[in-house]
Amino acid sequence: MRAKKPSESRTVMTDMVLPSETNPLNNLFGGELLARMDRAASIAARRHSRRITVTASVNHVAFNRSVPLGSVVTVEASVSRAFKTSMEIFIDVWMEDRFTGERTKANEAIYTFVAVDDTGIPTEVPPLQPETELEKDRFDAALRRKQLSLVLAGKMKPSDATELKALFLGD
Amino acid sequence: MRAKKPSESRTVMTDMVLPSETNPLNNLFGGELLARMDRAASIAARRHSRRITVTASVNHVAFNRSVPLGSVVTVEASVSRAFKTSMEIFIDVWMEDRFTGERTKANEAIYTFVAVDDTGIPTEVPPLQPETELEKDRFDAALRRKQLSLVLAGKMKPSDATELKALFLGD
Amino acid sequence: MRAKKPSESRTVMTDMVLPSETNPLNNLFGGELLARMDRAASIAARRHSRRITVTASVNHVAFNRSVPLGSVVTVEASVSRAFKTSMEIFIDVWMEDRFTGERTKANEAIYTFVAVDDTGIPTEVPPLQPETELEKDRFDAALRRKQLSLVLAGKMKPSDATELKALFLGD
Amino acid sequence: MRAKKPSESRTVMTDMVLPSETNPLNNLFGGELLARMDRAASIAARRHSRRITVTASVNHVAFNRSVPLGSVVTVEASVSRAFKTSMEIFIDVWMEDRFTGERTKANEAIYTFVAVDDTGIPTEVPPLQPETELEKDRFDAALRRKQLSLVLAGKMKPSDATELKALFLGD
Amino acid sequence: MRAKKPSESRTVMTDMVLPSETNPLNNLFGGELLARMDRAASIAARRHSRRITVTASVNHVAFNRSVPLGSVVTVEASVSRAFKTSMEIFIDVWMEDRFTGERTKANEAIYTFVAVDDTGIPTEVPPLQPETELEKDRFDAALRRKQLSLVLAGKMKPSDATELKALFLGD
Amino acid sequence: MRAKKPSESRTVMTDMVLPSETNPLNNLFGGELLARMDRAASIAARRHSRRITVTASVNHVAFNRSVPLGSVVTVEASVSRAFKTSMEIFIDVWMEDRFTGERTKANEAIYTFVAVDDTGIPTEVPPLQPETELEKDRFDAALRRKQLSLVLAGKMKPSDATELKALFLGD
Repeated sequence: MRAKKPSESRTVMTDMVLPSETNPLNNLFGGELLARMDRAASIAARRHSRRITVTASVNHVAFNRSVPLGSVVTVEASVSRAFKTSMEIFIDVWMEDRFTGERTKANEAIYTFVAVDDTGIPTEVPPLQPETELEKDRFDAALRRKQLSLVLAGKMKPSDATELKALFLGD
Repeated sequence: MRAKKPSESRTVMTDMVLPSETNPLNNLFGGELLARMDRAASIAARRHSRRITVTASVNHVAFNRSVPLGSVVTVEASVSRAFKTSMEIFIDVWMEDRFTGERTKANEAIYTFVAVDDTGIPTEVPPLQPETELEKDRFDAALRRKQLSLVLAGKMKPSDATELKALFLGD
Repeated sequence: MRAKKPSESRTVMTDMVLPSETNPLNNLFGGELLARMDRAASIAARRHSRRITVTASVNHVAFNRSVPLGSVVTVEASVSRAFKTSMEIFIDVWMEDRFTGERTKANEAIYTFVAVDDTGIPTEVPPLQPETELEKDRFDAALRRKQLSLVLAGKMKPSDATELKALFLGD
Repeated sequence: MRAKKPSESRTVMTDMVLPSETNPLNNLFGGELLARMDRAASIAARRHSRRITVTASVNHVAFNRSVPLGSVVTVEASVSRAFKTSMEIFIDVWMEDRFTGERTKANEAIYTFVAVDDTGIPTEVPPLQPETELEKDRFDAALRRKQLSLVLAGKMKPSDATELKALFLGD
Repeated sequence: MRAKKPSESRTVMTDMVLPSETNPLNNLFGGELLARMDRAASIAARRHSRRITVTASVNHVAFNRSVPLGSVVTVEASVSRAFKTSMEIFIDVWMEDRFTGERTKANEAIYTFVAVDDTGIPTEVPPLQPETELEKDRFDAALRRKQLSLVLAGKMKPSDATELKALFLGD
Repeated sequence: MRAKKPSESRTVMTDMVLPSETNPLNNLFGGELLARMDRAASIAARRHSRRITVTASVNHVAFNRSVPLGSVVTVEASVSRAFKTSMEIFIDVWMEDRFTGERTKANEAIYTFVAVDDTGIPTEVPPLQPETELEKDRFDAALRRKQLSLVLAGKMKPSDATELKALFLGD
């Protein structure tokens, strides 16, 4: 399969924060943002694989900034690395002040999707060819995240997670 | 503040999978499940703290089982450990076959919530007093997860994450 | 068919009252609560019968307490009596003050569901075996309610509704 | 206060049955219909009283006909009797076959609403002046239903419910 | 096919403006009103044709009046002219003040629908027989609108749009 | 006020067509697309003006292509001309085949928004400076559309609509 670039799967989903999506402090519910990111990431995964794609996992997500009612939220998702049948999707979330237009980073998240056929069986996806420096950094880090995920799931021995181990041993 | 037990925050949210929540394979969207778990976890956090609570982070979540349209899904959330102003919430998701009634584990997830006052400033929460073996295991593991989270966020040096380091060094 | 206990169909649905579900006084719409109770009752009926279940009727429901925006609402449903193909479901609704955590009874309701096969034809359900005093009281009262329902629908002569008649004659 | 006619509060709500509102048999959920009827009845009560109105109770509702996906459903609500601060609303539900256009009665329901001021305190409403035969019949029956409701709530002794008693004693 | 009258397709959709449908000024979103009008117009088109109907176009719509949260909105749609396979639907939108009950015209809109068979192929519809003066005026104007629409779409030469041309030439 | 470019207001809203948004042919409801376009256009108008913006009118919209369930739909909106307090927004809608990824134009629409202050009073907006050929063409055509709109609303005499008249007179 021909390798694809991150820009080929880039998905931009801009929308407002509506009253039905806010918590008692009038900020966007964390769960609502998780759902929006899942839809954007799912489209990015489909654009890369041209298959039905299903959420396999969500990496650690930190909600550092609250997003007030009436903000414009932009969710940008693109494939950061492709494995055999799975794809890591990196998601950047921006929010825009309603009046000044100032744009600030609200969140980052990493989801993993698997490409499946009509019966739900995992199926191969094209490799990813990163281009920019940022894309290359995310491509490299994706391998460490995959190792960590395998270790946490008990599917890889910590001692075999070469890249990850270096992090903790410092050397 | 008086310590509270996990059973005091336990929250059970049972509901069906409706057609508007499913992907092209007629299974529950991952993003929809993330949003349901967030609502259940938020209620558990509020029951423990009696404060407004906001999602601080979502730990790694794996979607190992697909949940078909028409299933009954039960989301059970309770506080697994309380820190100064934050609480780790452990969430178990069960699904029930529509006809046989067979109940299987569909997912596990861990969310962290922060208690805040009316202006959004973090505020103290009661400690947690685990009772059962499972609750004690989750209580202990919560500390390792917090360390990992601090390391990944660059707020703790890997070499100071004593409990976590042991995992990778093997002995 | 083996008799089942009320606890085998007990369904707990905890959720918040969101802004999109409230009336101009910022309380939960009656209609929204009716819909939530229907979903919980439908799951209880399915757990008892392991069949597709459809709403047959709703008994008199009184809304004595208003439920404010941001409350946590718990809907608890379980089968209170099974007839040939239908089941009476008793529903208790609790609300919890957002800050004090005080839990008060908000509502009671009684729905009747019919079990059907894939073509919509009514099909037999297991009998109910009540255990606690409350379950036994509800089980007995269910028969009087069924008689009242038949009388109001013109399907039973008032003079044949033995249990009900006693109520009005006094002794 | 000037008496008002049922036609002054008549409310017609026509809409389709959408996929997100249907059960596994592809028929409208009972709970969804209860919510639509509540909204229509609430508007009728407001048109009669020109006040904020809240659902006080729902009378017995029987779901005799299933309403398939894609049907056009017409909910017609009007005040059938006004008491001091409450109003009984009679609701007729019609469904229309998507292709033949044949219109059949799908349901009837009776809701009671209370008029309140901005602080939620019950407030007086105008009397109702029925005009047609059907309106007069419903007006008379409303009194018997109110008695039954008071008896069931334990607020009236069965022996004082004169009109209702006649029903069971025969003459 | 037998001609039908506008009254045979008249569709009345009354509903409230809910918090989840409002913009930052607490008025109904324009887009939400466009969607409600589309549903009402679609039902009117189906009532005239007894076919599946799909939106073909929306004429110029002006939003002259804002509709505040809590208003009762009545959308009234009926077929204003039928062509071979398409129907023009005229929609009047009324809003009602929550407290005074004063009813004012909020909007007018004109949608065109096409009747199709199960495979999406356009299919013939009955002619329209207008009755009242207003219905006759709208019937006549519908032809001019169709010409304008064809001109704007480049499917008719402006010089052939006889009725429309008169408008601009003055006599 | 500094003139702004169309690219400064460009808004991209990518999302899937979900089951709850489709008609009986399993295509996106016209009304649902009108609502999505309104949200995207509203964000573009706000990005240009940095004010609260409300829908003033929707130009003629033709639905030439049906958009099937499961498609990815991209709505792209940007300001095409600014007047004193109003802005014309040009919207392009693209759909993407779920499997081949082929992207085709599904729709075009033109909305007009007005910028208002907190009390709803219209307020001035910056002028638009088009850059590309397409932007310049749309900028010029916007004036003709405004004249047509004024003529249709009876606020300009057809004989004064200089640019528009030329269209019908041919030379």
